[in-house]
Amino acid sequence: MHTMTHESKEPPKPRRHAVTLHDIAKAAGVSVATASFVANGKRDVRLTDETRERVQRVIDELGYRPNAMAKNLVSGGSKFIGLVADAIATTPFAGQIIHGAQDEAWKHGYVLLVANTEGNEPAEREAITMMLEHQVRGILYSTWFHRAADVPEALRETDFVMVNCFSPSLDSRAVVPDEVQGGRTATDMLLAEGHRRVAFINTTAIAPARVGRLEGYQAALAAAGIDFDPALVLDAQPDQEGGFDAVESILRLGVNAVFCHNDRVAMGLYDGLRARGLAIPDDIAIVGFDNQEVISAHLRPPLSTVQLPHYELGAAGVRMLLGIDEAAPDELRRIACPPVARQSTSAPRPVQP
Amino acid sequence: MHTMTHESKEPPKPRRHAVTLHDIAKAAGVSVATASFVANGKRDVRLTDETRERVQRVIDELGYRPNAMAKNLVSGGSKFIGLVADAIATTPFAGQIIHGAQDEAWKHGYVLLVANTEGNEPAEREAITMMLEHQVRGILYSTWFHRAADVPEALRETDFVMVNCFSPSLDSRAVVPDEVQGGRTATDMLLAEGHRRVAFINTTAIAPARVGRLEGYQAALAAAGIDFDPALVLDAQPDQEGGFDAVESILRLGVNAVFCHNDRVAMGLYDGLRARGLAIPDDIAIVGFDNQEVISAHLRPPLSTVQLPHYELGAAGVRMLLGIDEAAPDELRRIACPPVARQSTSAPRPVQP
Repeated sequence: MHTMTHESKEPPKPRRHAVTLHDIAKAAGVSVATASFVANGKRDVRLTDETRERVQRVIDELGYRPNAMAKNLVSGGSKFIGLVADAIATTPFAGQIIHGAQDEAWKHGYVLLVANTEGNEPAEREAITMMLEHQVRGILYSTWFHRAADVPEALRETDFVMVNCFSPSLDSRAVVPDEVQGGRTATDMLLAEGHRRVAFINTTAIAPARVGRLEGYQAALAAAGIDFDPALVLDAQPDQEGGFDAVESILRLGVNAVFCHNDRVAMGLYDGLRARGLAIPDDIAIVGFDNQEVISAHLRPPLSTVQLPHYELGAAGVRMLLGIDEAAPDELRRIACPPVARQSTSAPRPVQP
Repeated sequence: MHTMTHESKEPPKPRRHAVTLHDIAKAAGVSVATASFVANGKRDVRLTDETRERVQRVIDELGYRPNAMAKNLVSGGSKFIGLVADAIATTPFAGQIIHGAQDEAWKHGYVLLVANTEGNEPAEREAITMMLEHQVRGILYSTWFHRAADVPEALRETDFVMVNCFSPSLDSRAVVPDEVQGGRTATDMLLAEGHRRVAFINTTAIAPARVGRLEGYQAALAAAGIDFDPALVLDAQPDQEGGFDAVESILRLGVNAVFCHNDRVAMGLYDGLRARGLAIPDDIAIVGFDNQEVISAHLRPPLSTVQLPHYELGAAGVRMLLGIDEAAPDELRRIACPPVARQSTSAPRPVQP
């Protein structure tokens, strides 16, 4: 009889370097493309029998196993998914939509055709036409901030999913951030520190983020048994200047906790509070929104915030397009915005011995 | 005899709305793809003669002229250029490389296949294999910060250009930012304000930016007849924390002007100086590097900086790949980093009546 321990009784498996197409190509003296053609049994490529046999021999000898993703990628030929973006590739942090869509597309054997249109309508039409000509499986239509967006006519000639946007008539499948849950999460991070009077610097921009985050803020207060006081909600330009200029109003309210519409507003508020000698979070606790790493992780103190789920929006869009996630033809799916706790809501307290 | 004036004597041309494929499709009652097939004379697509004729009649009536880009895009079929990126799509501001490459590729009738590999080698190999199988015209191999990068073997099976990186053995075509000129430009912005003692907070990271910007700093001083003082050059972590922590050293040097390795360092330095009650630019003038809009344009005061030419890197890479810009097989082309003047080098002076 033997006892189970943390360490396995089995002899350690020899650690094998996974054989790659590159190894095959090198050993057979052919290109990686040729190795790939043979490994994937492509008959429509001109190769001599001698070459095919030599490569196949190396494949058998080295024991090459194409990994699932690679096999999907190379065996399918031109299996494309289109991604039309108004400015994602050129916008800080929204590029994660591309990243998420690409990872999910590859996993299922599709290659992403990305077109960044900068919101230019003719460019958008031509991009969609190009994608239709490449017989894409479907198109993700995405915007760099969450908003209603008219569906271009040409898009209706193929399967499509709206990503980070939705049709005003709500007649199309869409994946968007859950602004209500996000606003509630941000507010909860302040309520959890014992604050009862929490100001909300909302944005002046008319967008789903404005309505949704306010609704979330109200829901969090209601759940905590706190009456909603409209005087605690301000509107400001959604950038550093807006946050800076809101300082007087915030101080006049006499609150010790502020939920900012986004990280940039929080950054401006930091500057304004410091200019008046106030400390974060001891005098005023702050929560942002977006999780723009390059800003929020590097403020003094690092900013607690709520993350826009860009990667997941892209991935979920692909899953919905391919039918992996089932969805009604007019499905509007909301993706959760998780909290990112840093140091702007509570100061680390010294431990008393 | 008549006199030339600013106003032309010719009757004003009627301003015509350019006819698009979308207009054709609508008028002919067909899809945009079908309109495109007919407009571009594609014979290998199954359409009834009746449809072809109807669409052609609409094309003739409305006077449709495909624009150069659109014509190139749709008539070439699968003309691809690959772009392999380690993290461009997910890095703030480097996404402009994708944007520049896409615009230039489209202009010449190519579609960009983008693969974001997150620096993962197997993913990179499979991405290149995928591109080779799609018979790309060539591949741009790019990195999110300027550095030496080993050339993957598979890349040598096609035309390629390194973008924002270069082969350590300098045997390949590459397009990179001109760090030396950039460093000189940044320093010149401070010298132009009359400063003679300019500190340089360089980065601790070993990279071309570190060597090149220092060389540019020295060149600017030399051109202004100022002796180089190594004591004025500090090394710091290239982020906000590095800038903040450099404040004591900067104050000990007794300088009134600082060139920061990047905008994030400048942002940290702003915080550190303000914590000591010092004003920018009156007490200390500051220049950054990168032009990360979301930071530099919104600091208080807005930061003067030097722009990394990401868009132009992508566009120049495509031109070099296609042979539009001639280049030696081992060409290392440097793209200028232009100055972006804001308010951190000189305060607006009140006009005396």
